[in-house]
Amino acid sequence: MPDTPDKPSSRRAFLTAGAAAGGAMLTAGPARAGDPAITEMQPWRRNLGDPIDDALYGMPSPFEADVIRGRVEWLTPDAYTAINFTPLHELDGIITPNGLCFQRSHAGAAQVDPAKYRLMINGLVERPLVFTLQDLQRFPRENRTYFLECAANSGMEWRGVQMDGVQFTHGMIHNVEYTGVPLRSLLEEAGVKTAGKWLLAEGSDAAAMSRSIPLEKALDDCLVAFNMNGEALRPEQGYPVRLVVPGWEGNMWVKWLRRIEVGDKPWHHREETSKYSDLMADGRTRRFTWEMDAKSVITSPSPQAPVLHGKGPLVVSGLAWSGRGTIPQVDITLDGGINWVKARLSGPSFDKSLHRFYYEFDWDGRPLLLQSRAHDSTGYVQPTKEALRKLRGVNSNYHNNGIQTWHLQSDGRVENVEVS
Amino acid sequence: MPDTPDKPSSRRAFLTAGAAAGGAMLTAGPARAGDPAITEMQPWRRNLGDPIDDALYGMPSPFEADVIRGRVEWLTPDAYTAINFTPLHELDGIITPNGLCFQRSHAGAAQVDPAKYRLMINGLVERPLVFTLQDLQRFPRENRTYFLECAANSGMEWRGVQMDGVQFTHGMIHNVEYTGVPLRSLLEEAGVKTAGKWLLAEGSDAAAMSRSIPLEKALDDCLVAFNMNGEALRPEQGYPVRLVVPGWEGNMWVKWLRRIEVGDKPWHHREETSKYSDLMADGRTRRFTWEMDAKSVITSPSPQAPVLHGKGPLVVSGLAWSGRGTIPQVDITLDGGINWVKARLSGPSFDKSLHRFYYEFDWDGRPLLLQSRAHDSTGYVQPTKEALRKLRGVNSNYHNNGIQTWHLQSDGRVENVEVS
Repeated sequence: MPDTPDKPSSRRAFLTAGAAAGGAMLTAGPARAGDPAITEMQPWRRNLGDPIDDALYGMPSPFEADVIRGRVEWLTPDAYTAINFTPLHELDGIITPNGLCFQRSHAGAAQVDPAKYRLMINGLVERPLVFTLQDLQRFPRENRTYFLECAANSGMEWRGVQMDGVQFTHGMIHNVEYTGVPLRSLLEEAGVKTAGKWLLAEGSDAAAMSRSIPLEKALDDCLVAFNMNGEALRPEQGYPVRLVVPGWEGNMWVKWLRRIEVGDKPWHHREETSKYSDLMADGRTRRFTWEMDAKSVITSPSPQAPVLHGKGPLVVSGLAWSGRGTIPQVDITLDGGINWVKARLSGPSFDKSLHRFYYEFDWDGRPLLLQSRAHDSTGYVQPTKEALRKLRGVNSNYHNNGIQTWHLQSDGRVENVEVS
Repeated sequence: MPDTPDKPSSRRAFLTAGAAAGGAMLTAGPARAGDPAITEMQPWRRNLGDPIDDALYGMPSPFEADVIRGRVEWLTPDAYTAINFTPLHELDGIITPNGLCFQRSHAGAAQVDPAKYRLMINGLVERPLVFTLQDLQRFPRENRTYFLECAANSGMEWRGVQMDGVQFTHGMIHNVEYTGVPLRSLLEEAGVKTAGKWLLAEGSDAAAMSRSIPLEKALDDCLVAFNMNGEALRPEQGYPVRLVVPGWEGNMWVKWLRRIEVGDKPWHHREETSKYSDLMADGRTRRFTWEMDAKSVITSPSPQAPVLHGKGPLVVSGLAWSGRGTIPQVDITLDGGINWVKARLSGPSFDKSLHRFYYEFDWDGRPLLLQSRAHDSTGYVQPTKEALRKLRGVNSNYHNNGIQTWHLQSDGRVENVEVS
């Protein structure tokens, strides 16, 4: 083992290791004397760069052209109902940039004209209301950062498909700063009648996606959002207005939000019965499975992010999250779960938001079985896939928050494996 | 005055006002019965939206095509040395999306090949070192959100130019989450000699931008960053590596970072003498003016974001920041500084990061003189422009953190004005 269990590398130890393994890691100036990247004048030092006019809305470097959302051809019937996976292996920190946010649509990405956008609140209310976008923007706003995870994230791993990369095992997730109006404010404006206990949230795209949401959640922390990471929502994320249902499965975050109906019981519409319901081993359905359980994954190294630099100092980077609160602790194992050490968290710890963790150590080049395990603020600990299957069987693709294993091989390649 | 000074509108008061002024603000369902946006079937409800394949790297809605960085033709000689201003009037929250981040280049945006990227540390060090990008990514990383503000932000207002919009008065600023390695770690790896007190940071573009930075700051909170808002740095922000110098003027955040030389005194290079130095009334230069003083501005309403909805509930939104810490308080005045009330802060309060504030009230349609005033965590209070001019004269364009006034007229239009 490259590190003593329960005694994680300190930064100082890491740096000392780095200095000691200098040959492998860093090369002093003179030793790089023949390096053409130094001796040859590079074009960006000789010539002017790109003019400013080319970047009035900026794009990534051409050298990052392969950092894009990914699609799995066999997974969905066509490009209108398909899934775009976030390239988690290429990202760091906790914010997902808007251009790379996971999306799942049921009838393609609607292009809604904001001037013709309307939101209706009807049903068991004192005053049925119709809001324009401008009306919504006259209520007091909040700014909060939340993860959105699809209920089917990691679903293909339930029965051991072993997708070839964290983008496809865990990439149905993103994490952005939302600006919006508390749904509570709009419901207070309409006046919910005493009998009102449930909401139906309905989208204005051709699929008219709709989900039942208990009033208690709506009054707690839901937002009617119009901005993400500062700018207007992206079309595929529900422009101009989406519902934000913090910590709950992504399909409830209705995009292109058109209508909120207040009722006295759940509707049991198509997308909450034939889809997005979890079949148990005995054929019965778990009800309701809204909250996303605590989960974590190592994003690098991973099958799409192999170790290219050989042995010596290695940075393990990953994400952890919980639909029930914050993440005070993440554990790491290098030997498939025999010994565990604490990872280092870096960056903000927001409620129901991604957390970034790291673990730095001096890799001796031997094969490893890398896993991470999240603890959330309720005391819940992320389970193994085996424990989940024992509890729930394998009829459902949803809500797989089991521990993921990456097999780091001596040559630096990484495989998706299962350990028992 | 629409609100009692020192007694800001509560949310409840706001909502009551909204309900009372229902005719002006919200229209109940039946009253919108003839609204064609409701009665006519919209194309996005009838037809499939865009296919997923079109958005492997996503872009904003076509309806947001005018939300772009702005350029002022007369300000700089050509498009290679020009300035792209952040459209602050269109944004909310604290994160600036990467595509809209302010940029200033001295020789265009360099397109650096990351495989040929090298960072040298030389001068008064035990071991001169050359790092590849991969070398840098083997050190422990940090994630922190910081504002970057150009020293010349609001500079044109010193002598009262009164630019027509917050994008041009205050848009030389952005705020993103950085992932990078503490500069301290790299300096420890090289071993700074006892005589080493200053650094020269040099860029690898054709302008070879260079700035002197005291060692104390470098060891404190500077980062050698490679990601912004999760993804790789954008080319115009220094891809693949830039220096992050939290709270200090933007030109010190050297882009396309090529070299760090350790020395025993400041270099007084071109970009810290002929440029980016503040001439006083008597012709002498203030030295050194690195830290960005506490500042704030109302982003909406503002000249580019007029009030289109007439009187009634109005949301004032703005930004506040300090190069010396956090912002515990922002004040708002509606009458040009006679009466002040506290604004409401919403969103994270990070060290040396933008803070978002709001003030909601019921506008009676009378003209207003809107101002905001930031207090930072050191107790410093943002001054008036008049006070700054008295202190420093009008020879310099730099470090104008004076209070900005917007004149909201009865018809909803907003002008950039000065009050004395």
